[in-house]
Amino acid sequence: MDNAGCNKFDPMGAAFDEARAAATRGEVPVGAVIVRDGRLIASDGNRPRQLRDPSAHAEMLAIRRACEVLDDERLTGCDLYVTLEPCTMCAAAISFARIRRVYFAAYDPKGGAVENGVRFFDQPTCHHAPEVYGGIRESEAATLLRGFFEGRR
Amino acid sequence: MDNAGCNKFDPMGAAFDEARAAATRGEVPVGAVIVRDGRLIASDGNRPRQLRDPSAHAEMLAIRRACEVLDDERLTGCDLYVTLEPCTMCAAAISFARIRRVYFAAYDPKGGAVENGVRFFDQPTCHHAPEVYGGIRESEAATLLRGFFEGRR
Repeated sequence: MDNAGCNKFDPMGAAFDEARAAATRGEVPVGAVIVRDGRLIASDGNRPRQLRDPSAHAEMLAIRRACEVLDDERLTGCDLYVTLEPCTMCAAAISFARIRRVYFAAYDPKGGAVENGVRFFDQPTCHHAPEVYGGIRESEAATLLRGFFEGRR
Repeated sequence: MDNAGCNKFDPMGAAFDEARAAATRGEVPVGAVIVRDGRLIASDGNRPRQLRDPSAHAEMLAIRRACEVLDDERLTGCDLYVTLEPCTMCAAAISFARIRRVYFAAYDPKGGAVENGVRFFDQPTCHHAPEVYGGIRESEAATLLRGFFEGRR
C-alpha cells in the first residue's frame, strides 16, 4: 500500500481492496487489514482455496503476517479492519493475538462469532476481548459478497 | 514416525510424543496427530512462541500440514488425536477441515471449546461436527501439563 504513511490512509478501504482481490482469485471476497498508530502493519484477503488451507481466512493471514512483521506473538495496540464479521476461528485468534479493536463491515448470521453465533468475546473462556465496531460500510460489503455468490450460481 | 505403516501405530501415543517435544521447546505441551485409514498423515506440537504465531497450536499446524500433504483443503475421512481438548479457534478449524473424528486426552475447562466453553460442535453456526471422544489417557495428559506449569513457577 503506497499510501500507508499518509494521513488519508483508509484501513477499511484497504480491506475492501483485499476483498475485491480475493474475489478475482475465486475466493469468498473478504479482506483484512491490521494497523498500529495509523500505520499499515499487514493486510491480506481470503486464500483457503489457493493455499489449500481451511484456516487461510483473511484475518488469520493478516494476523500471522503482522506477528512476523512485529516479531511478536502479541499484537498489542493493533487494530483489525475486516469486511465481514469474524468467524469462530478468527474471533479466537483475534483474542489470542491481543488485538485492541476490531472494525468489521457486514454482519454474518450464518458464520459470524462476534455479534452472532457463539459471541466469543462475551464468553468466560475468552481471556482478551477487543473493542468491537460492527456494520461499517455494511451495505457495500453485503453487495460485494452477494455479487460474488450470484456470479457463481 | 518410523512405525507409521505398522499395525501397532498408536496415534495418541504419537500425540503425546509431540506434546513432550513441545515442552522441551518451552511450549505448552500439547501434541496433535492426523491419521487416515490407520496411516499417519501429519503431526505437530504447539509452536506459538517459537513461530511468534498465536495461531500455531498443535491442531492448527497438523491440519495445515495434512492439507498440504493431501493437497486438499478438506480432510475428509481423517481423524485427529490431540492431548488437550481443542480451543475455540482449533474447534472451528477442525470443523472447516471436515475432520471425521476427534480423540482428545485432557479436558480444558479454562480454554476448551468442545465439552467446555462455547461447545462449538453443538452450535447452529457449526456446519460440520466431527464425532468426539474425550478423556483418553486423561490423567497422563493432565500430569504432563501440570508438570510443565509447575516447572515454570
